[in-house]
Amino acid sequence: MTDQEPLDVAKLQRRLAEFAAARDWQQYHTPKNLVAALSVEASELVEIFQWLTPEESARVMADPDTARRVTDEVADVLSYLLQLCEVLDVDPLAALDAKIERNEKRFPPS
Amino acid sequence: MTDQEPLDVAKLQRRLAEFAAARDWQQYHTPKNLVAALSVEASELVEIFQWLTPEESARVMADPDTARRVTDEVADVLSYLLQLCEVLDVDPLAALDAKIERNEKRFPPS
Amino acid sequence: MTDQEPLDVAKLQRRLAEFAAARDWQQYHTPKNLVAALSVEASELVEIFQWLTPEESARVMADPDTARRVTDEVADVLSYLLQLCEVLDVDPLAALDAKIERNEKRFPPS
Amino acid sequence: MTDQEPLDVAKLQRRLAEFAAARDWQQYHTPKNLVAALSVEASELVEIFQWLTPEESARVMADPDTARRVTDEVADVLSYLLQLCEVLDVDPLAALDAKIERNEKRFPPS
Repeated sequence: MTDQEPLDVAKLQRRLAEFAAARDWQQYHTPKNLVAALSVEASELVEIFQWLTPEESARVMADPDTARRVTDEVADVLSYLLQLCEVLDVDPLAALDAKIERNEKRFPPS
Repeated sequence: MTDQEPLDVAKLQRRLAEFAAARDWQQYHTPKNLVAALSVEASELVEIFQWLTPEESARVMADPDTARRVTDEVADVLSYLLQLCEVLDVDPLAALDAKIERNEKRFPPS
Repeated sequence: MTDQEPLDVAKLQRRLAEFAAARDWQQYHTPKNLVAALSVEASELVEIFQWLTPEESARVMADPDTARRVTDEVADVLSYLLQLCEVLDVDPLAALDAKIERNEKRFPPS
Repeated sequence: MTDQEPLDVAKLQRRLAEFAAARDWQQYHTPKNLVAALSVEASELVEIFQWLTPEESARVMADPDTARRVTDEVADVLSYLLQLCEVLDVDPLAALDAKIERNEKRFPPS
């Protein structure tokens, strides 16, 4: 970021859209392809953890190389999620807000 | 949301953390389990699109039931992604911002 | 199976192909769609295990309902894998045989 | 294969078990870890197809490099599926046979 304004989801979505447009990649960004790409990136996160014990998985950020890899895959998942929301015109934060409200009713605290 | 402040990622993360704490679910929220849950939710999105043509996939929000299902799965993916970031202390927006900058250098526009 | 011959992969592939043909489903069975369906079924297996400890996961077949669910998802994964191999003309057993040979050279026993 | 007997699933499972035992890898092969690995390999298949049109996906074996990659990922998926079945004591061919029979009743041909 060259400016100093705080990051927000809408701004990142705009940059992702401009990035894809400048490379003529929007033609590939059907919802079907974007959900496939999203699931592939989520699996790349799983790959990092697949042979770890629960305890090892909790210490994964202690190793700088693994921490970088995890952070990078988190970015990839968020990138495809936001691009999917853009082409489908879904507001991800509103969707999650509504979901938490429903879950609060569905699963009363113990 | 009972208040009228704008939604943001940090606020949603706080609500998700309180939701899990009130149900004593944090014990299940190892990074390993959260990435598995994230990938399962991403696949539930894929399931909606798996037999559709690219053209059908582009019209998926025209059907209210499918639109609701898609929005709900988007919320689930975002929910686990934010909970993962919380337990790993990763800032998802900063991660994506850094990734876009790297990709701008790696893939110069055509 | 009404006959008493042993099951084999080729015979199951033939039955899957006849099953799809009788329902006019081959039109949906592009390689792209079949790999998506395969990954969705693999994730349905993950879903069964996602919140379990390693120890709980090792006892999963002790519960008849979960055992049935696991067996059912194993069948779904194998079903799409064999249908994919059919449309791509890949021999899955030969592919695995060749892979094990390569891995025996790549990872010498300790 | 050094011998000339036909390949079969049981024989491949035995070789996979010996391969893991010789490297002391069975300790990692909890059902939970094996389903995660299975889903990761299924996603590596999806990755090959994610930006392709249905038509391009149907021609994927025409390119020798892609054909090799696809065959290799098919082997990986089958490898983890068979290892999972081994540790869970599930017969994958019998599971699929039973599933096809159930589906024949559930989805009568049109």
